[in-house]
Amino acid sequence: MTKELDLDFYDAKTRRMIDAMRVAEEQMLKEARRASSPYMTDITRRQVLRGAVIVGGAAAAVPMFSGAAGAAVPPGSADWPVPADPTKVHGRVTNAEGGYGLRSPFEKEVRVRFPTATKESSWTFTPLESGQGIVTPSGLHFERHHGGTAFIDPAKHELVVHGMVGKAMKYTVEDLKRFPSVSKFYFIECSGNGLTEWKKPYLKTVQGTHGLTSTSEWTGVPLSTIMAEVGVKEGSTWMLAEGGDSAVMTRSIPIAKCWGDAMLAYSQNGEALRPEQGYPMRLLLPGWEGNTHIKWVRRLEFSDAPFMTREETSKYTDLLDNGKARQFSFVMEAKSVITFPSGEMRLPGPGDYEITGLAWSGRGRIRRVEVSVDGGQSWRVAELQNPVLPICHTRFRSWWRWDGKPAILQSRCVDETGYTQPTIKQLVDVRGLGGHAKFASIYHFNAIQSWAVDKDGGVKNVHA
Amino acid sequence: MTKELDLDFYDAKTRRMIDAMRVAEEQMLKEARRASSPYMTDITRRQVLRGAVIVGGAAAAVPMFSGAAGAAVPPGSADWPVPADPTKVHGRVTNAEGGYGLRSPFEKEVRVRFPTATKESSWTFTPLESGQGIVTPSGLHFERHHGGTAFIDPAKHELVVHGMVGKAMKYTVEDLKRFPSVSKFYFIECSGNGLTEWKKPYLKTVQGTHGLTSTSEWTGVPLSTIMAEVGVKEGSTWMLAEGGDSAVMTRSIPIAKCWGDAMLAYSQNGEALRPEQGYPMRLLLPGWEGNTHIKWVRRLEFSDAPFMTREETSKYTDLLDNGKARQFSFVMEAKSVITFPSGEMRLPGPGDYEITGLAWSGRGRIRRVEVSVDGGQSWRVAELQNPVLPICHTRFRSWWRWDGKPAILQSRCVDETGYTQPTIKQLVDVRGLGGHAKFASIYHFNAIQSWAVDKDGGVKNVHA
Repeated sequence: MTKELDLDFYDAKTRRMIDAMRVAEEQMLKEARRASSPYMTDITRRQVLRGAVIVGGAAAAVPMFSGAAGAAVPPGSADWPVPADPTKVHGRVTNAEGGYGLRSPFEKEVRVRFPTATKESSWTFTPLESGQGIVTPSGLHFERHHGGTAFIDPAKHELVVHGMVGKAMKYTVEDLKRFPSVSKFYFIECSGNGLTEWKKPYLKTVQGTHGLTSTSEWTGVPLSTIMAEVGVKEGSTWMLAEGGDSAVMTRSIPIAKCWGDAMLAYSQNGEALRPEQGYPMRLLLPGWEGNTHIKWVRRLEFSDAPFMTREETSKYTDLLDNGKARQFSFVMEAKSVITFPSGEMRLPGPGDYEITGLAWSGRGRIRRVEVSVDGGQSWRVAELQNPVLPICHTRFRSWWRWDGKPAILQSRCVDETGYTQPTIKQLVDVRGLGGHAKFASIYHFNAIQSWAVDKDGGVKNVHA
Repeated sequence: MTKELDLDFYDAKTRRMIDAMRVAEEQMLKEARRASSPYMTDITRRQVLRGAVIVGGAAAAVPMFSGAAGAAVPPGSADWPVPADPTKVHGRVTNAEGGYGLRSPFEKEVRVRFPTATKESSWTFTPLESGQGIVTPSGLHFERHHGGTAFIDPAKHELVVHGMVGKAMKYTVEDLKRFPSVSKFYFIECSGNGLTEWKKPYLKTVQGTHGLTSTSEWTGVPLSTIMAEVGVKEGSTWMLAEGGDSAVMTRSIPIAKCWGDAMLAYSQNGEALRPEQGYPMRLLLPGWEGNTHIKWVRRLEFSDAPFMTREETSKYTDLLDNGKARQFSFVMEAKSVITFPSGEMRLPGPGDYEITGLAWSGRGRIRRVEVSVDGGQSWRVAELQNPVLPICHTRFRSWWRWDGKPAILQSRCVDETGYTQPTIKQLVDVRGLGGHAKFASIYHFNAIQSWAVDKDGGVKNVHA
């Protein structure tokens, strides 16, 4: 191959290297053409037709080639033991993992599953205690499923948009990728996050008390783009979103949010959505309770009234002590938690520690986080890690010299609207506890979290 | 367990759920105590002693518990087939992947390995053509190894800091985690990125021409903190950083960068560094050529002169036509590339397309990106996706109505210093091509990339 490439002005060694790179690239392209997609060779009639309907003459999106992965050899397997001295043996060949990297086998953090009544309707919690920065690794993003993780072939998945529209339409993921896209860092929090903590400190760890929130960089199409395409009619005030899982999850969404920052997301942290996050597409409603971010979304119906689905009547409402219920309580209010130190850790002794944690608000940016080490008697302003992004986890830090005496650590945040995270007492005064008996008032718990440090350094979940 | 928890104010169903959550959390804690770390039960003498040396009385860091993973059932395996209708069968139980999520088997993008002279000294390229947003998935971060991926037990890894210091010290990862930390989104680019493209368009795809750059959120300790701890002496002007891989990679770093934004990183995208990125710790020198971000870093030596290692004399210098060489050319200058459409893609027909790509600069923020669809005759300003962060990939977008005629797509960027990305001719005029014959002038190629679109929609790498 060398000759045709006119590589003669390179030295022999460089020529060999460049030649080898060309060969490797050709191999990758061959595999891409053969394997997962027709895009590099020809466009199917189906794609052209569908595309034509949507953007006036232009066909479906042209996604990218993808090379076939080699055999995966995970570090720590029999084939790849830990060497006694890593400088005395060569490491594994680059790409030994098959082209898609894995974490070190020495890293053990997992999403712990907290079982519910049925095994398919369950949740797993992000291990916030081991997180760093603001991004949650996609493999550790919390899960909440009502019918397990649906497993979907993206080539067969369609999104139907109908109801009060000028023209009902169907879209594949590839169709959506043709539209102008947007990428944003957003947290998603389940409104059940902290549901055990209303009356007494029940769970022991921050993973248990706060692990139903995670942050990713999401990419997708603004929902308003699709609404303009189908011509949503002026009298439409609500939209139903329906998931393609076995729960066929459905929620009604006010039209203003749909025209606002709502997104049809197909990418998470730079790659396709993970299966448990709704692959190949999900609804994303920045700052609203996670349940409304319909995963595996397959249908959007526009209407002039809410649909009163099960998940917005018997569930995901907040029964108050007076017998009335808060319904469509979508926004996740400002909340913060110290992740280090947190429940069930033990500080090895007096000395200097960096208290760190996360704050977030469904209404915008976090303006301020304060930390107390004396159970709320005094507060000091924590440092916020830049960038501080709207509707996104914000990392805060505060230096602490522990004198070895018992202490109670707390954080509280204020968002850009001026809303201040409440104490448990303030929250219960408004919301009551009566609803618990009917499994109704458990949502939207955002009170200040307290961690008690005893004289031996042990850290416990307490109400203080 | 229910009784002791005083759950009687909950209804029966909620009681059962909360009870089950407690049981699950206890199981997780038991496994964490038994498995990977002693932190939840007691602190070893070794940790206390080492910690005491470092931060005056306080012992080593207290990392977090980690649950043991269940059996992994990847989607697409025999045990988890694609259902014909995902709404008619339950999905897999939450956490079926063993607590750490995997991507869908329908997603195939991999880091392609472009072989070099030896199989251990090699590189793999990020598939930029399929990326979204600014974060690179850790599993697809490019790799450049000189001795393969070192496989290191973090508990046995130490960083020695010595030379012109008041007191030589050793640090484990856990020691480093005790210090105040910082999290930042930074790109890392290999200075060999684009080395094939100086004279002619050699590689076909954007993965081949530009895939040696990736962005992650990195967390670690400012190097300046450690320098203050060991008391780096006033006359010290350079630091040697040495890796713990079989290449024992070494580079000399000017002291100003060390006192500046340099970081000892132990976390990438919210979890521990990936093995191929230097697990358990690497040097991070924001904006400087990737080779200087020493992975598996095990030694820092302070001195009053550079060490003139192999990697800064025979390699990683830029030989000019006049026989002189640029040495210590650390900064990665501003660069941009269109990732869609890019080489070897095919546009299905005339119509509307979103041109998108990435821009970055080792000197700070990207101020502006311009896109041309006529080979540089005219330019229009592209939209920059917020947040635009310093020394970080910046996503740009520009809408294009393709009329079906041949076109040449280009992007050029300007960074906050006012530096404008050069044309190939401008770059070659300054740097020359003579050095190629000695495998020397191949680094720091940052010229404008051109993609030619032919009338059939085929996209090719060209010099224009």
